[in-house]
Amino acid sequence: MQNERVNLDAAFGKLQEYFSPKVVGRVNDQYVKVTKLKGEFPWHTHEHEDEMFLVVRGRLTIGRSEQDGGPVVLEPGEFFIVPRGMRHNTSATEETWNILIEPVTTTHSGDVQSPLTKSIAEQLA
Amino acid sequence: MQNERVNLDAAFGKLQEYFSPKVVGRVNDQYVKVTKLKGEFPWHTHEHEDEMFLVVRGRLTIGRSEQDGGPVVLEPGEFFIVPRGMRHNTSATEETWNILIEPVTTTHSGDVQSPLTKSIAEQLA
Repeated sequence: MQNERVNLDAAFGKLQEYFSPKVVGRVNDQYVKVTKLKGEFPWHTHEHEDEMFLVVRGRLTIGRSEQDGGPVVLEPGEFFIVPRGMRHNTSATEETWNILIEPVTTTHSGDVQSPLTKSIAEQLA
Repeated sequence: MQNERVNLDAAFGKLQEYFSPKVVGRVNDQYVKVTKLKGEFPWHTHEHEDEMFLVVRGRLTIGRSEQDGGPVVLEPGEFFIVPRGMRHNTSATEETWNILIEPVTTTHSGDVQSPLTKSIAEQLA
């Protein structure tokens, strides 16, 4: 994986399941992941870790509480970094392609275990 | 800067100088930077830090020694992570837009001081 050029279209093309991030690179102590989304992913929190979402196709809604500013909608070419400790969810009405950057230790569903939760091992497979 | 949606076209649109990265986000202990390149940036090494290059416009050549595999050419939608300790340079014959991800401590010209070197303070300005 490391020391290779990565073509994002090719990496996204290999994804067959929604909400199943795959690691495509590691920069220092963080993974770069690609994920396709459609539907809704449960609300959760990462107590100690920021999480970056960069949309390349579709439209991603990052839910936040009203107190935290309410939902953020990302179009292609836009990113948002969810700060540690902020409760959030993700949803998309159309198929959406997203690049995730987060620490190698981050579980994508944070403090919540859901049927959609994928282990780091599954994300590396 | 944090807790705001970032539109990359708008961020690149503000850049007026080549090889002058600007910080547009921070995810944990790494900065997300945008930079426009045209011409050649000197060879250098970051002894302890990986550096990610994601091209969104133009074409970026990352020079590596023959022993390290020779040059890597990135088109839009492609990225490469230069591992710590690997001597490299960057060059572009046409204006190229690049997203850089690297530790908050990284000087973009690594172990080399050149007239093109920008301090972290300048990158945050």
